[in-house]
Amino acid sequence: MATKLWEKDYTLDQRIADFTVGRDRELDLELAPFDILGSLAHVRMLAEVGLLDEGAARRCKVKLQELYGRAAAGDFVIDDGVEDVHSQVEILLTEALGDDGKKIHSGRSRNDQVLVDLRLYFRHRIRTVVEKTGTLSETLTDLSEEHKDKLIPGYTHLQVAMVSSFGLWFGAFAEALVDDLKIWKGVYDVVDQNPLGSAAGYGSSFPLDRDRTTELLGFASPVVNVVAAQMGRGKTELVTAFGIAGLAQTLSKLAMDVCLYSSQNFGFLQLPKELTTGSSIMPHKKNPDVFELLRGRCNLLQTLPAQMAQLTGNLPSGYHRDYQLLKEAIFPALDQLEDCLDMAIYALPRTSVRAQELPTDPRYVYLYSVEAVNNLVLEGVPFRDAYVQVGKDIDAGTFVPPTNLQHTHLGSLGNLGNDRITTKRLQALAAFDFERSEKALHKLAGQ
Amino acid sequence: MATKLWEKDYTLDQRIADFTVGRDRELDLELAPFDILGSLAHVRMLAEVGLLDEGAARRCKVKLQELYGRAAAGDFVIDDGVEDVHSQVEILLTEALGDDGKKIHSGRSRNDQVLVDLRLYFRHRIRTVVEKTGTLSETLTDLSEEHKDKLIPGYTHLQVAMVSSFGLWFGAFAEALVDDLKIWKGVYDVVDQNPLGSAAGYGSSFPLDRDRTTELLGFASPVVNVVAAQMGRGKTELVTAFGIAGLAQTLSKLAMDVCLYSSQNFGFLQLPKELTTGSSIMPHKKNPDVFELLRGRCNLLQTLPAQMAQLTGNLPSGYHRDYQLLKEAIFPALDQLEDCLDMAIYALPRTSVRAQELPTDPRYVYLYSVEAVNNLVLEGVPFRDAYVQVGKDIDAGTFVPPTNLQHTHLGSLGNLGNDRITTKRLQALAAFDFERSEKALHKLAGQ
Amino acid sequence: MATKLWEKDYTLDQRIADFTVGRDRELDLELAPFDILGSLAHVRMLAEVGLLDEGAARRCKVKLQELYGRAAAGDFVIDDGVEDVHSQVEILLTEALGDDGKKIHSGRSRNDQVLVDLRLYFRHRIRTVVEKTGTLSETLTDLSEEHKDKLIPGYTHLQVAMVSSFGLWFGAFAEALVDDLKIWKGVYDVVDQNPLGSAAGYGSSFPLDRDRTTELLGFASPVVNVVAAQMGRGKTELVTAFGIAGLAQTLSKLAMDVCLYSSQNFGFLQLPKELTTGSSIMPHKKNPDVFELLRGRCNLLQTLPAQMAQLTGNLPSGYHRDYQLLKEAIFPALDQLEDCLDMAIYALPRTSVRAQELPTDPRYVYLYSVEAVNNLVLEGVPFRDAYVQVGKDIDAGTFVPPTNLQHTHLGSLGNLGNDRITTKRLQALAAFDFERSEKALHKLAGQ
Amino acid sequence: MATKLWEKDYTLDQRIADFTVGRDRELDLELAPFDILGSLAHVRMLAEVGLLDEGAARRCKVKLQELYGRAAAGDFVIDDGVEDVHSQVEILLTEALGDDGKKIHSGRSRNDQVLVDLRLYFRHRIRTVVEKTGTLSETLTDLSEEHKDKLIPGYTHLQVAMVSSFGLWFGAFAEALVDDLKIWKGVYDVVDQNPLGSAAGYGSSFPLDRDRTTELLGFASPVVNVVAAQMGRGKTELVTAFGIAGLAQTLSKLAMDVCLYSSQNFGFLQLPKELTTGSSIMPHKKNPDVFELLRGRCNLLQTLPAQMAQLTGNLPSGYHRDYQLLKEAIFPALDQLEDCLDMAIYALPRTSVRAQELPTDPRYVYLYSVEAVNNLVLEGVPFRDAYVQVGKDIDAGTFVPPTNLQHTHLGSLGNLGNDRITTKRLQALAAFDFERSEKALHKLAGQ
Repeated sequence: MATKLWEKDYTLDQRIADFTVGRDRELDLELAPFDILGSLAHVRMLAEVGLLDEGAARRCKVKLQELYGRAAAGDFVIDDGVEDVHSQVEILLTEALGDDGKKIHSGRSRNDQVLVDLRLYFRHRIRTVVEKTGTLSETLTDLSEEHKDKLIPGYTHLQVAMVSSFGLWFGAFAEALVDDLKIWKGVYDVVDQNPLGSAAGYGSSFPLDRDRTTELLGFASPVVNVVAAQMGRGKTELVTAFGIAGLAQTLSKLAMDVCLYSSQNFGFLQLPKELTTGSSIMPHKKNPDVFELLRGRCNLLQTLPAQMAQLTGNLPSGYHRDYQLLKEAIFPALDQLEDCLDMAIYALPRTSVRAQELPTDPRYVYLYSVEAVNNLVLEGVPFRDAYVQVGKDIDAGTFVPPTNLQHTHLGSLGNLGNDRITTKRLQALAAFDFERSEKALHKLAGQ
Repeated sequence: MATKLWEKDYTLDQRIADFTVGRDRELDLELAPFDILGSLAHVRMLAEVGLLDEGAARRCKVKLQELYGRAAAGDFVIDDGVEDVHSQVEILLTEALGDDGKKIHSGRSRNDQVLVDLRLYFRHRIRTVVEKTGTLSETLTDLSEEHKDKLIPGYTHLQVAMVSSFGLWFGAFAEALVDDLKIWKGVYDVVDQNPLGSAAGYGSSFPLDRDRTTELLGFASPVVNVVAAQMGRGKTELVTAFGIAGLAQTLSKLAMDVCLYSSQNFGFLQLPKELTTGSSIMPHKKNPDVFELLRGRCNLLQTLPAQMAQLTGNLPSGYHRDYQLLKEAIFPALDQLEDCLDMAIYALPRTSVRAQELPTDPRYVYLYSVEAVNNLVLEGVPFRDAYVQVGKDIDAGTFVPPTNLQHTHLGSLGNLGNDRITTKRLQALAAFDFERSEKALHKLAGQ
Repeated sequence: MATKLWEKDYTLDQRIADFTVGRDRELDLELAPFDILGSLAHVRMLAEVGLLDEGAARRCKVKLQELYGRAAAGDFVIDDGVEDVHSQVEILLTEALGDDGKKIHSGRSRNDQVLVDLRLYFRHRIRTVVEKTGTLSETLTDLSEEHKDKLIPGYTHLQVAMVSSFGLWFGAFAEALVDDLKIWKGVYDVVDQNPLGSAAGYGSSFPLDRDRTTELLGFASPVVNVVAAQMGRGKTELVTAFGIAGLAQTLSKLAMDVCLYSSQNFGFLQLPKELTTGSSIMPHKKNPDVFELLRGRCNLLQTLPAQMAQLTGNLPSGYHRDYQLLKEAIFPALDQLEDCLDMAIYALPRTSVRAQELPTDPRYVYLYSVEAVNNLVLEGVPFRDAYVQVGKDIDAGTFVPPTNLQHTHLGSLGNLGNDRITTKRLQALAAFDFERSEKALHKLAGQ
Repeated sequence: MATKLWEKDYTLDQRIADFTVGRDRELDLELAPFDILGSLAHVRMLAEVGLLDEGAARRCKVKLQELYGRAAAGDFVIDDGVEDVHSQVEILLTEALGDDGKKIHSGRSRNDQVLVDLRLYFRHRIRTVVEKTGTLSETLTDLSEEHKDKLIPGYTHLQVAMVSSFGLWFGAFAEALVDDLKIWKGVYDVVDQNPLGSAAGYGSSFPLDRDRTTELLGFASPVVNVVAAQMGRGKTELVTAFGIAGLAQTLSKLAMDVCLYSSQNFGFLQLPKELTTGSSIMPHKKNPDVFELLRGRCNLLQTLPAQMAQLTGNLPSGYHRDYQLLKEAIFPALDQLEDCLDMAIYALPRTSVRAQELPTDPRYVYLYSVEAVNNLVLEGVPFRDAYVQVGKDIDAGTFVPPTNLQHTHLGSLGNLGNDRITTKRLQALAAFDFERSEKALHKLAGQ
């Protein structure tokens, strides 16, 4: 049987087929449930505008909902020799329903099929990433509260600078993740639009009701212009890459700190045995491989925007097969990002923190020089003069650290503001209206 | 007089000074008005919490507002030998007010000074970029309406595919720009937070009122955690780079289309003389240099996220001098992006469009093959069978294009949906609350 | 039995193990033969310096050569639960030889083991890439000769500019590939150095003979300094990425030209059916997917240097686990690059070229304007004056193209210089001394 | 007078002119001497093949040599309103010589003029970079010898691992730089080819002698194919970017180590006062700004290949104006790279090194665990058994470090192999035949 739907009367050499199909069949499995949902919406709309009779529409719906159940359970298979998920669904439908199955391709193209699959897929993946980011941020806030009184040196230029604490350190990453959520919100708003009905990028002479499929699939709006819908390919992936890269920057910085602070030269953190590995020749080693790999992985993820941009750069408008390769860059990236979030959520609460003896450790005594300056200022000495006086004490070796720290303003050592950060996080999460789309899809799937 | 505020009793070799100061003095000029606004807010807050007496605060305010007037008018100068804008402002203040001028550095550091300058600066620049993007989108919608009946071929794989139009083509970019605005909204929400009060990244023992400076500077909220405020350096620039790169992708694709469509092999567009250049040896040449440079410029801008990520990658938390170099990458990029928007806004309405004779040009006749298939489908033939039949006609040379196009659905040839796109644009623009911050700054500046 | 050699008395949670091992086991299979060769050299050297008795050395050699045969035949397997190839080889050896098998780890670490594996592996892969590049260059020269008289327009700014030919077009890429070989030569010279003996990056107290293993493994020299040997991790991959990215740029430009020239708007090339695909809705389509994917693939490959740089950026000297991730970026890239070379070698000779009717096609008539200018110059008119005169003829519509082209200088239409390009190619290929290393490895493997 | 040579009878709006000319006039000043050398070679060749009479050729030569003298002395100026260096030279020549000056444009185009300028320029810049790299490598070797007995910990995973020394550390970077030279050799071999005679990328009907200009300009060979010569634009810059990025990786790693080792938590290095800066609020700070900026600068330089690739990606063959922007990315990069080399050459010998008390510092005692294992191995215990035994001693707290280090093999603590590294460096430097080209240019310039 013809497994490539556009096959005419010639065959492709196997090697060429491998080169062109690439990892599509494997990656398309992830798209299967979304492809079926797209077909369910398309079929229902076709019936409503009179392009499919109600009986055929009902039979298609029953079969598609059955296939969806399989796909959602992970049991969907793309048969050998079948090129992609769209073909597989159409073949199964045609086998089951004959001519009725053939009719559902009316008014659409593989182009807008894959476009709608991808947007449903990204919307789904973004939800998980956003929720895990929220969980990690909450974890970090909890750790900040738990360890708020444990002091460590704060560094600038990698030089000891001023007094910091585990409260500040954990809390900083909790808040930084909220910023990442804000970028994801922009990404989500770009993604959450319906391209179905754009066909091959130039629309169709069928009287499609694109607002109806938009509603059925729970999208916030249609991509209106059909050429714009096609141009979304590449852009959707680019902005998703922005979301990934931004979050990855935060995570890689966190991991770098963990690796550095676990070094004997800092000794601020101690990882539990199950998060370290040994050396083949040095019996004493306990290496922070989990955080090194988290760091490295997130650094690689930071290159995704460059990958997307280079792949799509200078391609004129209209579909190009190059876009197929976007999938193999971005799908695994989302898996890896989730892994990194999971690892951080798991590992951080299991990591021991070690408060430092700041005023008595000769490496850290000058942490208090600003306090000494500020004390003089509070006694009325102009700042610049106080600065000079303390500098002279330090040079003369007569500096005595004032250890009665009184940091009271918002966000400082003595007033971490974790409740404010929690409020920010909850607001950022609430801006995503995941429920609306979820409900629509459940209804469509007959669940 | 000491022009480097941290200078003690040694001098730097001039070459080292050049290497370390780099382009700071030049770039800092752009920051001058924002630096002064930050000082105005800081001074007022210091007085309100009792760290500065009211008389001194009033004198500082008067002088700072005078300096702001100069800076806003472009008349602010960083004197030779003065390292940066922060030093220059402090020097002028100290010259004018003596000890009062020295006092305003209480409770802050150059670190949070530059942090607040940068966020005010980016907020300001984003407004202009967003507004110009809105203007370009509107221009494109107008052109779409104006040329909605002029047909051109639509391409997939650079092969003629289906009938398109200038209405679709212009309208597509109008809508794509609205997506870019959505990313900018995420960027803006990250930027629009107040880092002032974080000092060197570890807060201060002064009882600062950070919510008050937040209000005075018109920020949506403080960056709560002081370490997070410092970590915003690099992240702020990275997300701004996302906004730039996303918009640049849209513009470079537009420019690629213009260059291609201006080629004699397409002939869809003709640029006016003032937008082309000639050749030193070929007297007939009219080259689309403006759009080539717009394309190339926007492609370079697409590499900004990679530049930001490479510069900040694997730096532990806390300030590093490397961050100084972020400015010289991102400041000119914003200028260039605005230039590109201006050029597009200027050039597109001056470009002649040439509708193509589609059904009679042998290169374009097969554009109508889908229509032929669809006509059969509307007569009741299943899609796949109709597809095979038309394919046979084409191979046999008997294909006759049906030229009565009836594209009626939303976003298609006959129903461009430009009003819907306009609504989207207006909503996207309204999501930015530029007025709130603008009003706060005007008040602060005494205007 | 303990399958992770550094395992002490605790076990890792499976998920952590998956995260840390990643794709190592799969990728390590490619390293197996090279790992065994490294061990063969190490064992022989150990025996020669008296660290291993001759009997044990002989038994190790026999077993290792047997394992090499299996690995070279693709039959080497990393057992479930075994972490990497190094462990698998050591386990098999210890199972077969008992204590003798354990001894071969003396004087080395997994660090220098993987370093030597990678350099042997890259050296091997570079050879294949270089040879295929040579073949493609030769193919292009042949096509240049075959089609040397077939004219096409030459473009600048995508505007028709001057007369070109398929001879020039094919020949240009033949020569460009020779430049890519020159970069590969630099890469090869960096790679072809022996890191064995650097242990964990700080050497060893064993009296190793590093010049001897250098000779046995056919390296041009040792990496002398042991810290430098470790620093080669990341650098080796970065320079290999340079080789890949440079070649990919040439291939992607070639593919872009093919896609453009296959468009109906150019019509210079026609791909054979087996190299095109159809459309699911447009029965007339014959899309150049193979070249689009070649283009897209090579564009992604151009981002490899950025990936390597971001992954290794700001890591201090000494090994970090992040380096493990280099493999999964660069190993598949080499496969993909070879696929692209193979596709181009296969496809280009099967592509039909269509000479264009230049002087009679109104799109192309001005191609001859420079010739008209030059004819005037040869009659004694200064160049700039001739240029103005022809420009006036064109504007007045009185320009008549002179069609008697006389391009005779080296590298021009009438004198392609393909023999000179062939000489360059042969010299570039000869600069690689693949035989020396190949011979050494054959001897070591007992073949 | 007409200052844009291709200007006909229309003028460009000033803003468009600014957008299109960009930074050309400023950057072109750097090209001036090379542009004049290209003209000198072209004129002489034109005379030899009979396209210019000897008298005119002589007059052109005299005037051009005079202009070269000015340009080499930095006194060449591009007048207001003149677009680029090529126009300025031609204008000056025409002013001085009348029609003779106009004639030298015969048989070439601005395209191959800028191509030859750029290759001469890059060749010149590469020489300086290579020589400074050699100097830095030599400096590092000297420091390695000077400090060869001063021990520091060696790290893997940022964990203390084995004993290292300043001898090893300095020497490692000395050798790594030699690898960078090998990549530069590949780059140089691509650059050192003559594109002159390719005109606008499609050759010329003039009987040019391209081998003669190749000889006159001291190039190793011509770029044979004229289309290949034009395609070299973008490729030349890409490979130069490879050279820059590779070297920058080495330098940024060196700088990262310096910054880390200068931290109070390591304390291995102390920078002299003139290489540090202070803090505006912390009187004790001595920040390693020079090395931070060196690190940041080199990280930005590592993104150059991505910038070149994104700018040129998917541009079909033939010139595009986008290529103009290559200059503004790569010219300053070469300046910055030289600055970084100069800074490192200056700073490293002025940096104090502090040997560490390894066996008595509790942070560092386990550095000796491998030695303990190896001692057991030398007594006949199989490696894996010795490893387990020492591990048990460490866990039990009974480990005693054996401090009699005996590292004797090549490249190790006790046998740094600096003479071997010096030999490598001298060979790598000798592979560049800078003298050949230098001599040819001197002769051409009449010096």
